[in-house]
Amino acid sequence: MAKLIYDNTKNRDVFYAVKMDIVDPFFLIDLGVKKYVFLDHREFGLFQERNKNQNIEVQLLNPLVQEAAKLSLSKDNLQNLAWYLLQKYELLGEIITVPNNFPLLLADFLRSKGVKLVPQIHLYPERASKTPDEAEAIRSSVQKTEKAFALIEKILRESVIKGNSIFYSGAILTSEFLKKEVERLLFEEDMISEEGIIISSGLQTAIPHHPGKGAIKPHEPIVCDIFPKSRATRYFADVTRTFVKGTPTEELRKMYEAVRKAQKEGIEAVAPGKKASDIHKICAEILLDAGYDVGDKGFIHNTGHGVGLEVHEEPRLGERVEYELVPGNVITIEPGLYYPEIGGIRIEDDILVTKDGFENFTTFPKDKWIIP
Amino acid sequence: MAKLIYDNTKNRDVFYAVKMDIVDPFFLIDLGVKKYVFLDHREFGLFQERNKNQNIEVQLLNPLVQEAAKLSLSKDNLQNLAWYLLQKYELLGEIITVPNNFPLLLADFLRSKGVKLVPQIHLYPERASKTPDEAEAIRSSVQKTEKAFALIEKILRESVIKGNSIFYSGAILTSEFLKKEVERLLFEEDMISEEGIIISSGLQTAIPHHPGKGAIKPHEPIVCDIFPKSRATRYFADVTRTFVKGTPTEELRKMYEAVRKAQKEGIEAVAPGKKASDIHKICAEILLDAGYDVGDKGFIHNTGHGVGLEVHEEPRLGERVEYELVPGNVITIEPGLYYPEIGGIRIEDDILVTKDGFENFTTFPKDKWIIP
Repeated sequence: MAKLIYDNTKNRDVFYAVKMDIVDPFFLIDLGVKKYVFLDHREFGLFQERNKNQNIEVQLLNPLVQEAAKLSLSKDNLQNLAWYLLQKYELLGEIITVPNNFPLLLADFLRSKGVKLVPQIHLYPERASKTPDEAEAIRSSVQKTEKAFALIEKILRESVIKGNSIFYSGAILTSEFLKKEVERLLFEEDMISEEGIIISSGLQTAIPHHPGKGAIKPHEPIVCDIFPKSRATRYFADVTRTFVKGTPTEELRKMYEAVRKAQKEGIEAVAPGKKASDIHKICAEILLDAGYDVGDKGFIHNTGHGVGLEVHEEPRLGERVEYELVPGNVITIEPGLYYPEIGGIRIEDDILVTKDGFENFTTFPKDKWIIP
Repeated sequence: MAKLIYDNTKNRDVFYAVKMDIVDPFFLIDLGVKKYVFLDHREFGLFQERNKNQNIEVQLLNPLVQEAAKLSLSKDNLQNLAWYLLQKYELLGEIITVPNNFPLLLADFLRSKGVKLVPQIHLYPERASKTPDEAEAIRSSVQKTEKAFALIEKILRESVIKGNSIFYSGAILTSEFLKKEVERLLFEEDMISEEGIIISSGLQTAIPHHPGKGAIKPHEPIVCDIFPKSRATRYFADVTRTFVKGTPTEELRKMYEAVRKAQKEGIEAVAPGKKASDIHKICAEILLDAGYDVGDKGFIHNTGHGVGLEVHEEPRLGERVEYELVPGNVITIEPGLYYPEIGGIRIEDDILVTKDGFENFTTFPKDKWIIP
């Protein structure tokens, strides 16, 4: 079925279709075998130069806009253009798939002219199953990201506890300092953490997405969730480790071991044909069995998600997700426990679903989490 | 009029409304005086901690999802939830403004239940006129970005031409090297160039958005278009300078002077009440008068655009834009000339529209473009 898109490549479905970053929205018609892209002078020549896919044809937008304006169907040239392109490619009578975020004004106009539009949430569901090249790109991103954990561990090891503070190189160790060090390392690895990173400590860690600020607390959890993408390939990694500098309470040790066990068994359950919800249930049950809560406290989020051109993408590993894993999925397995009065623990690896089971891209150890 | 949004804060209208980054889509109801935000456990507590606006109320999503599911209006919980929230806030009979990229499936569902949705392209048109704090943030981003131009100039000055190559520190000077140096500097300034930067040379420069690759060519244009945002404030700068290392041809000098004159007069025409299209016409006419082309070759793009939470935002300074400038607009003025057989020249400053006229945030000189 023909697809009609009008968006920029921040929409990663659009990037996936054209494999090039384009800042402003543009029209893309995807006929399956063949794709047509319409760009103005700012990118037309660049696309011609860069495009390696014989089945993508780029056309200069400007003369088409002029032709379309002559239609005078609408005061809005974008609407004229959309209709003109559908006419040009003999799609006016067809059912057209559009992204779920397709411009509503444009959808209303096209439908008022009788065009049949069917919105689809995942325009390229095949994105959930990575090609070997895509999997390799994610593996490489994971490897680079793991260097950041080695750096954090090193800094924590070289730090000293005085009273209720941690000192590194004579200054109080902060989330801000650690994040800057990590981002500098990632920068040199040609990785970019567009959406920031999480290095939180103390009770901040009870909020999974708390980015962390201020002094790193001794004897309390330090949650490091690092999810940068490669500038070269655009593929993300998403890895979390929890550290403690000093001596964790027995309560915290027990929590850590429960999360670690849940994560281990969650990972080992990964295989083609396995339901996303089943992986989630395995993790949830281990945590319940260990005496923790699932839902409104304790384990308060999904077990994981796909990772690729977006840090969160399909498939989601949640309670009600019927999706069955297939070879090529790259998913995070990241159970966690969160209590406002204790803090949070999360451990997250990136896992490739293989023909026979799984391969864990993440090698950073989980047993050296307590740093004296 | 009430607004209903379902998106993440990559949609900068959503960030503008809540002033916080949230990775996954969430519902936001904006009643004008009061806003309601619905988040799950991953961000609920963080939002409570961070939110400084008394008129934004955050609610925990989870119990609302459960209530909404009981409605059983749809198999899709998102659809139930949207309807439930509209009912809860007594908005079912109202006309609801939604963003133009509002999920089409959700729009179709709500409309099928009689909800009146009116899509709007610019949900917060006030974004085009910056508050003093926002203008200050952009000024600061521009100042940091200008350090990158000083670095490029320094590297070019310290480079030597041998034959048809430029050498710096014993190696051939490349786009890649310059971009890495610039990005390292930006990193240390807490700036991030999410969408990349342009440092192109030779005939690459004839394509305005060519990011540049390979050896920097002597005696030919080097277009440096740098548009990073501040990690702290999230506001962009967008500045371009064109350099030549060596001796430009007379043809290139003439082109540069024409663009510089067009830019100067374009900037000096900036004032409240001035039409966006008039600024564009001033630049276009100077270039036409100097014997260059406008449209399909020569000056092939708009004169500029707003800059703020997005690198390209409202207002656009194009041929047909009726928008009248108001104090607080921050716009680029960036005429350029592009010929496939010669290359391109572009000069871009960031200009604040003030009560009496304009203030140019950009101070990097334009007369030292030829570097011997």
